[in-house]
Amino acid sequence: MNEVIKTILNHRSLRHFEDKPLTDEQIKTIVTSAQAAATSSFIQAYSIIGVKDKEKKKKLAEIAGNQEYVEKNGHFFVFCADLYRHTIIGEKEQKDVTPSIESTEKFMVALIDASLAAQNAAIAAESLGLGICYIGGIRNNLEEVKKLLKTPERVIPLFGLAVGVPTKLTDKKPRLPYEHVYHEDEYQQNSEVYLSQLQKYDELISSYYEERTNGKRKDRWTDQIATMLDRKSRMYMKEFVQKNKLNLK
Amino acid sequence: MNEVIKTILNHRSLRHFEDKPLTDEQIKTIVTSAQAAATSSFIQAYSIIGVKDKEKKKKLAEIAGNQEYVEKNGHFFVFCADLYRHTIIGEKEQKDVTPSIESTEKFMVALIDASLAAQNAAIAAESLGLGICYIGGIRNNLEEVKKLLKTPERVIPLFGLAVGVPTKLTDKKPRLPYEHVYHEDEYQQNSEVYLSQLQKYDELISSYYEERTNGKRKDRWTDQIATMLDRKSRMYMKEFVQKNKLNLK
Repeated sequence: MNEVIKTILNHRSLRHFEDKPLTDEQIKTIVTSAQAAATSSFIQAYSIIGVKDKEKKKKLAEIAGNQEYVEKNGHFFVFCADLYRHTIIGEKEQKDVTPSIESTEKFMVALIDASLAAQNAAIAAESLGLGICYIGGIRNNLEEVKKLLKTPERVIPLFGLAVGVPTKLTDKKPRLPYEHVYHEDEYQQNSEVYLSQLQKYDELISSYYEERTNGKRKDRWTDQIATMLDRKSRMYMKEFVQKNKLNLK
Repeated sequence: MNEVIKTILNHRSLRHFEDKPLTDEQIKTIVTSAQAAATSSFIQAYSIIGVKDKEKKKKLAEIAGNQEYVEKNGHFFVFCADLYRHTIIGEKEQKDVTPSIESTEKFMVALIDASLAAQNAAIAAESLGLGICYIGGIRNNLEEVKKLLKTPERVIPLFGLAVGVPTKLTDKKPRLPYEHVYHEDEYQQNSEVYLSQLQKYDELISSYYEERTNGKRKDRWTDQIATMLDRKSRMYMKEFVQKNKLNLK
């Protein structure tokens, strides 16, 4: 197994970091790695905001549901879908880019672009011996995040990436069965097979929790996820995105 | 520079492959790498379809605008946003997951999850000496792709990933200036600075093309992108996604 695949397979989300800021060189390596990712038709529809300001980090931690590691880490990146750039380009080149920019298609492109870049950043950071944790919690209140980071219309902060020198390792959580995620030639919809794969996975996850909590927790994955989805969260998102003039048509 | 960062920075989209299928082991390594990526609240909202069937690959190549390399490669993966799984889980656990699943928030989560997984797959493949090319062109006609791959409601095929032994290398295209993509503490909106960064980048891209075409092409990036956005494309996407019961509320 080569070093790259070893790094990829060794991923786990880490949430405890030393109080030691990343060096400028580390930040530069991580961002340059992000930029090297593929981008749809060369559109480069994302931006990254590195947050150093302590007050801002504190507020972001609150927004994310008092997640301490949003405040205490080596560096906090915010990855944004960005079509503001392309609005400016439209003005500069006097082309009517608005219908494109406001389409669901280009909203998807910007999300995909930002995520490909982020995963490069994550892998690069991990290869430097740093720990990472994605922070979707900033989406609890994007109106506030937007004010804090002064993002213009057509920029949507998507998630944070906390990076730092880890002080506490965690275990890797087992993923869904390979055959459940990977289909050959067509999507496998046979419900008997489908449900038995989920059943098998539930057992795996239950014993994962059981072992790690001395039998206190035995969560099944399907229950965990159904319970999470049953609590509606961030239902303001459509309105927020459309107010920022994306995903409109 | 470590091997991981070297691999990341060495990325370029490759479009000519040997007629040599990936081994099962290579496919397994690539998919397992994809699965190791972070996933929002452990939701795992994506699936991957590996297309081996020659007829299907031929049709996908046509849909993608007659891109030969969609047909001729070592393997063709299709990455899908997948909340069908979670619909089934809701039924299984008798929870009302529908409003969550139909929200823009969860649509975004599924796109992000699928893209993080895809970028792991891309990096893993490149680390094995294989070439890759993302294929957004399958979004030209998702209704057809859906029929071909038999994806159920709440699954959206997002993009393909052509992988194979490369026969022709290409140059890396220079990315937007670092300072234009990476902001500190807040989004840098000063329009003079913003436009001068774009101007600088246009000059870089012009000379990139000029050198490689003996002066025949001198495209500026902003013109290239504005022209692309001026041609409206895939404007059916919102309707398609909503017909598949995602991004509704």
